[in-house]
Amino acid sequence: MSVKLAQISTLPPEDFKKKKIEAKTIDMVIKIGELQHKLYAEGKQSLLVILQGMDASGKDGTIKTVFADCNPSGIDTFAFKKPTEEEFAHDFLWRISRKTPLKGNIMIFNRSQYEDILIQRVHKWIDDEKAEKRMKSINAFEELLQYDNNTRVLKFYMHISPERQQEKLQERIDDPAKNWKHKAADWEENDHWDEYMRCYEYAINNSSIPWHIAPSDKRWYRNYFIAKVVLDTLENINPKLPLLEKSNG
Amino acid sequence: MSVKLAQISTLPPEDFKKKKIEAKTIDMVIKIGELQHKLYAEGKQSLLVILQGMDASGKDGTIKTVFADCNPSGIDTFAFKKPTEEEFAHDFLWRISRKTPLKGNIMIFNRSQYEDILIQRVHKWIDDEKAEKRMKSINAFEELLQYDNNTRVLKFYMHISPERQQEKLQERIDDPAKNWKHKAADWEENDHWDEYMRCYEYAINNSSIPWHIAPSDKRWYRNYFIAKVVLDTLENINPKLPLLEKSNG
Repeated sequence: MSVKLAQISTLPPEDFKKKKIEAKTIDMVIKIGELQHKLYAEGKQSLLVILQGMDASGKDGTIKTVFADCNPSGIDTFAFKKPTEEEFAHDFLWRISRKTPLKGNIMIFNRSQYEDILIQRVHKWIDDEKAEKRMKSINAFEELLQYDNNTRVLKFYMHISPERQQEKLQERIDDPAKNWKHKAADWEENDHWDEYMRCYEYAINNSSIPWHIAPSDKRWYRNYFIAKVVLDTLENINPKLPLLEKSNG
Repeated sequence: MSVKLAQISTLPPEDFKKKKIEAKTIDMVIKIGELQHKLYAEGKQSLLVILQGMDASGKDGTIKTVFADCNPSGIDTFAFKKPTEEEFAHDFLWRISRKTPLKGNIMIFNRSQYEDILIQRVHKWIDDEKAEKRMKSINAFEELLQYDNNTRVLKFYMHISPERQQEKLQERIDDPAKNWKHKAADWEENDHWDEYMRCYEYAINNSSIPWHIAPSDKRWYRNYFIAKVVLDTLENINPKLPLLEKSNG
């Protein structure tokens, strides 16, 4: 079954009401914090959350909201930017592997290994054959994390419409508190929107670990959607506080 | 075609004479140094040399001899020992990936990712299913280095007979200059010799990048054998000194 992003809504389902959903999200964020504490204390499993999406699709906002109640000792985030000279002198997964979570920890990737088959493919810095090889390497790498380190890999595509993205990029110009996020280059990348969608669909349809497509036009629904998947996953992982064995003494 | 180590000689071919071979090795070691200089100056390709073998099979001696003429700026070696607590809290390739060579460099692994399907399998710390999964991960990892970073991966199994190994371990006790290498545990590992051979054969027969089996009972032939493969590989890689374009001014 092949995903076509244009056929998937970027909006909340019609019967979802903002106030009620926001209250539910708050409850879930608290539960995520509780389970993260157990995950950390247990020290046997870990969680890697990958956030991918076009500019202004809400990666930063998601991190700030969904993981607000986690203890910073057991959670970390890393934003992958243009590779450094040292990173370029290694294979593309070298810098990714270094940042994978320790047992007991949650790691959030703001952008990830997928950039190496997204921006690089869109701009033809790599050809299709290399993109296909890299896709296979990514699958092998993610499977390794799961079977060899009990790392659950959760991948989100933040699905935003081009119209909503334009509004959010414009906010960065109009709102002084958001000016710091403005980069002219973000507007230029939009000339490649269709090609980005094609490359995202390739990644989504060829990943061995499935993606979650988070409708992201509305912040409140996006946060709810992602919090729910994270919470379900942590409940499924089911970390347990280690207890001392009771002595008879 | 399946390799059976017991059917492969650990001795030099009969018509190879020590003095003549040692002279040839010296010539090759010099040429390796010259090509390493070009590899470093070019900065586009790299070489990963993996040395695996039983204790006293000659890993340290090989490094000291074969790479004696290389410029230390462009070459590094790493001896993988028992994983640290931080390393154990990650997948088994995490610590390996960090040490892969930069473009332009040679990296020598004294033991490697293969320990995770050798000592760990021999002692039943992992089961066969996990060993098979790890073998697939190793193949994907080595292929990644080759296609994505122009890293040539050269793997040597240092093939020594159990009798010759006993002699060399005994030298470590008898010769004060070698006492520092003696570890009682090395003798204990020998109770598992046959099982080690079985696990080595599995690795050799299931690797997508082929192994070189270096007859290692005689130091002089082992050094010759490995130097020859390294030199042939560097000649095949054919690194070139970058030249400035001549101006007409």
